[in-house]
Amino acid sequence: MALSSPLLEQAVDQLATLPGVGRRTAMRFALELLRREPQEVARLAEAIRRLREEVRFCEHCCNISDSAVCEICADPNRDRGLVAVVEDIRDVIAIENTRQFRGLYHVLGGVISPMDGVGPDDLHTKELFARVSGGEVREVVLALGATLEGDTTGFYLNRRLKEMGVEVTMIARGISVGGDLENVDELTLGRSIMDRKPYEQGVKR
Amino acid sequence: MALSSPLLEQAVDQLATLPGVGRRTAMRFALELLRREPQEVARLAEAIRRLREEVRFCEHCCNISDSAVCEICADPNRDRGLVAVVEDIRDVIAIENTRQFRGLYHVLGGVISPMDGVGPDDLHTKELFARVSGGEVREVVLALGATLEGDTTGFYLNRRLKEMGVEVTMIARGISVGGDLENVDELTLGRSIMDRKPYEQGVKR
Repeated sequence: MALSSPLLEQAVDQLATLPGVGRRTAMRFALELLRREPQEVARLAEAIRRLREEVRFCEHCCNISDSAVCEICADPNRDRGLVAVVEDIRDVIAIENTRQFRGLYHVLGGVISPMDGVGPDDLHTKELFARVSGGEVREVVLALGATLEGDTTGFYLNRRLKEMGVEVTMIARGISVGGDLENVDELTLGRSIMDRKPYEQGVKR
Repeated sequence: MALSSPLLEQAVDQLATLPGVGRRTAMRFALELLRREPQEVARLAEAIRRLREEVRFCEHCCNISDSAVCEICADPNRDRGLVAVVEDIRDVIAIENTRQFRGLYHVLGGVISPMDGVGPDDLHTKELFARVSGGEVREVVLALGATLEGDTTGFYLNRRLKEMGVEVTMIARGISVGGDLENVDELTLGRSIMDRKPYEQGVKR
């Protein structure tokens, strides 16, 4: 696609680097931006630039936070011996919304993905090992997605953390609450049979 | 979704203003940007800001162009009496790729859409009328999408342009070249029957 404007060309090229955005969508974004007021567009550009330049990470859990220690890590009512390892801030929000977890978090900032060139050292793993070797942590819960990348990351972390003598657990996999059996995929259903547990224990809230 | 960082909140809010981007996708964009080098992110922000601030429009056809007159309008081999009215630069590119059109363009920069608050005055219609009243234009081809908005825009432009005494045509609607009948929607197929033409005229290349 030859464009009459290098400025447009450049904006489309840059927008097309966003995840899941191809050149067609990037062109749609660019043309929409051209219809807006310049100040509005400058606000978008500024928010993007500042996000990367000024954002800070909690020095304990590596979660995105505008202060040195995030609210969760600063909360004295949290169980400091229990740490849930998650991929990113979205998972922290999701788990907080369940109100079932009163420990702290450790945010990796991604998962191991050889396909995308992401190795353990590209994640906040060093900070996790430092935290665990501090001795305060009793149990690490691996709360990672049930994907190839999540499993790879879990496998790696479990091996390293076990060597450090900490208890390592992972969140349960099984059928969804409220779901029927006929719509569950085979792998999940198979797993839920393998991981069956005494009835009284299964129905407890 | 309560976030621990106003900077992230703001970036997500701004990214979610892009067309077709909800808060979930905006969050995905933001987290991906946080994984990149600051200079890379600054390049994206800069390309967006410059696009809106520095881009220019051809003074004849209103197409995006980094010079005062675009390449097409400056081409002496083009038929200056024939003007195709299109929605945006993507349509110019699409028509140019057919190599079937040797006239000039007029780029509206959108279509009339009451739902989105876009009226005729938000588009480059004034420039079109000024161009036509200049007297050089013989025929205006409405090359707009076959959508409600495209049809509304065509209806409005045809009425105004007819008053000015110029010939107004529109691009043909019918079945796709290479397509079979069973997969064509009813409206298009019906239209292609209504608009049937003598065989010899229809098969000419």
